Amino acid sequence: MTAHDIPAYMAHLGAAARAASTRMARAGTREKNTALSELAQRLRAAGPALAQANARDIAAAEQAGLAAPMVDRLRLTGQVIETVAEGCEQLAAMPDPIGEITGVKRRPSGISVGQMRVPLGVFGMIYESRPNVTIEAASLAIKSGNACILRGGSEAIHSNMALWRLVQQALVAAGLPAEAVQLVETTDRAAVGRLIAMPESVDVIIPRGGKGLIERIAAEARVPVIKHLDGNCHTYVDAEVDLDLAVTVTDNAKTQKYSPCNATESLLVHAASAPAFLPRMGAVFAAKGVEMRCCAQARALLSGVPGAVLADATDADWAEEYLAPVISVKVVASLDEAIDHINRFGSHHTDAILTNHHPNAMRFLREVDSASVMVNASTRFADGFEYGLGAEIGISTDKFHARGPVGLEGLTSMKWVVLGQGEVRQ
Amino acid sequence: MTAHDIPAYMAHLGAAARAASTRMARAGTREKNTALSELAQRLRAAGPALAQANARDIAAAEQAGLAAPMVDRLRLTGQVIETVAEGCEQLAAMPDPIGEITGVKRRPSGISVGQMRVPLGVFGMIYESRPNVTIEAASLAIKSGNACILRGGSEAIHSNMALWRLVQQALVAAGLPAEAVQLVETTDRAAVGRLIAMPESVDVIIPRGGKGLIERIAAEARVPVIKHLDGNCHTYVDAEVDLDLAVTVTDNAKTQKYSPCNATESLLVHAASAPAFLPRMGAVFAAKGVEMRCCAQARALLSGVPGAVLADATDADWAEEYLAPVISVKVVASLDEAIDHINRFGSHHTDAILTNHHPNAMRFLREVDSASVMVNASTRFADGFEYGLGAEIGISTDKFHARGPVGLEGLTSMKWVVLGQGEVRQ
Repeated sequence: MTAHDIPAYMAHLGAAARAASTRMARAGTREKNTALSELAQRLRAAGPALAQANARDIAAAEQAGLAAPMVDRLRLTGQVIETVAEGCEQLAAMPDPIGEITGVKRRPSGISVGQMRVPLGVFGMIYESRPNVTIEAASLAIKSGNACILRGGSEAIHSNMALWRLVQQALVAAGLPAEAVQLVETTDRAAVGRLIAMPESVDVIIPRGGKGLIERIAAEARVPVIKHLDGNCHTYVDAEVDLDLAVTVTDNAKTQKYSPCNATESLLVHAASAPAFLPRMGAVFAAKGVEMRCCAQARALLSGVPGAVLADATDADWAEEYLAPVISVKVVASLDEAIDHINRFGSHHTDAILTNHHPNAMRFLREVDSASVMVNASTRFADGFEYGLGAEIGISTDKFHARGPVGLEGLTSMKWVVLGQGEVRQ
Repeated sequence: MTAHDIPAYMAHLGAAARAASTRMARAGTREKNTALSELAQRLRAAGPALAQANARDIAAAEQAGLAAPMVDRLRLTGQVIETVAEGCEQLAAMPDPIGEITGVKRRPSGISVGQMRVPLGVFGMIYESRPNVTIEAASLAIKSGNACILRGGSEAIHSNMALWRLVQQALVAAGLPAEAVQLVETTDRAAVGRLIAMPESVDVIIPRGGKGLIERIAAEARVPVIKHLDGNCHTYVDAEVDLDLAVTVTDNAKTQKYSPCNATESLLVHAASAPAFLPRMGAVFAAKGVEMRCCAQARALLSGVPGAVLADATDADWAEEYLAPVISVKVVASLDEAIDHINRFGSHHTDAILTNHHPNAMRFLREVDSASVMVNASTRFADGFEYGLGAEIGISTDKFHARGPVGLEGLTSMKWVVLGQGEVRQ
């Protein structure tokens, strides 16, 4: 099968993945764990073939004049390889989610009704640059009993193909079908258009990349999409609060790393704590070179902080995901105003309240309409590993099916199981 | 707001529903249950206003020459009213799903992580003929803390509006916003096109009606759809089986009612039990006038049954949802053939195995890729009430988010809750 006839090529990949998915769905825990251990071993032993493939991508990227950080993302260093190999071993050590039957209840008719966790079937993954995502997605597919079709970035195509070969070898070594993990071997963009429009072969699409890419996929897909758009996260400092805790946690939420989607982009402060809190907080931000875009009240309270970089916030600032040493700062009159502001300008990703007041903590948890809501913790904790999911295929900012960090469970479905002794409907 | 500017009208409904949804999300259990009790009372006391509205719809339907069964579906008889009123009271008596926090675990970082069940927000419901669906959808919205926008069939518009007024009165009597339940007051079809394309106001669409309607909505919707297409359900009679049980259950699965989506449409019989089972089963079907469309082997075994209406099955028969006194019958050589046949020709709705062989029962449960899988029970049990969901907004033949009968939980989402004491990310 050559790749110049894209519709036929993609239909072929889809049919192969669909066929393999029924075998994966009934694969035993030991088979799946063997495949993951085999993959970890093969990654560590991959040696020159993988290094050469990676070098080709890096040389092409440098020749094409890609920025140094983009080129770095492509690099399969020894440490990157070791990390993904360990990830496979961690997945192997986790409980198998598939086949678990829960909530079985006897009904008045005599039947027993419960739910069994089963794979979704086939997922399609569309991603950019970092080739280690190939292994993360493949290993999650294996453990969750799904098949998958992977479409990485064109700049990583040789690395991805080399990694994919290791995945297929590991599957075969475990007695599982190599076709359970398919890689799109062409960089033709038409392949993405087909991948997202084959409901007969693909049950869900998981895109990872820039907002533009994800919006386009969500608009054009003919299958469900688990998607992550903005991370405009808020930290709200309540009226009754431990000031030391508030400074420490807010500092971490904003400055521990600027680029992740769970970094805080907007700071809301209750008017009662603002006079004591904001000058202290502002001094920390000033020392780290974090620009503060302020409402008038916040600006007045921060104006005396030496070295502070201050600006007036616009409505666009309240909605902005900076991913940079910039934070918007607003003084609010009440918890209600904070909640309304977050639900209006936020991106429903992750928002935290810092408070000593229990009823306010509970109201914030209930009423802020976000995938993760936190009390007295850094928004940076919103992460599959930190939540104990073992691995993360993505983060969902939707409410449907999977919300927030998506691990193995997000790749499964619950079917109803009825156990009878010959009961009939009256 | 008049209805001649459909986009503006629908945007207005959507904005009102979205605003009301935040109030519904934080409504107390007592408020929601009061609204449901008030609604039950008002339904029983509705009297002439409701009867007159219903009479208008029925007169119009009769004048338009609608078939008698279609006209009957419109009728709000005393019994229909009492049934929906009791449904509201049953929902009031059920546990409130909203706010429940589950699975809280302490993580090595010190934070506690769990999940809180919350409403989806706003659902849109598109349905045909029977006006009691207006009350079923409204009451499920109230209990699940959602707002909803209802779009019923044009033939029931006056009945739906009269019922809707009772819903709004009940909401107000409970101190909840009347806008939590919106009804599209125009019968213009353009309103449906808008309803399914307002992601800013509507989180999910639930269509109930003919397959054509649902396929069109699924293809055009810009928000998730909980949809139910075919119910091509199978009963498979295994090699080791109690023949009395097999005849009783298969009879019930096919003939207890012909029209529901969970009625069995296809009978598979293992070759080892077919010679004893099929003539007995065929006699029952012959007595009830059920036509049997057979493979060659089945036809040979049934040919001696007096009065049997037999025909040769085509591939189209294996895929057909008859909703009528017709059943396709096939003899299979193995459990594997049965499972493959069901996964190939079935609609992933409900399929049952009748067997005394435990390993075969377990394989069937695991490997048949359907929303409901059953052992030794009638497929007719696939139903929200029979499963103990208390109420049913629809049945999903998708794997994503909600699968099979959808009750209150399908109208909710789980958000992550993090409880800390000032933890920061390392």
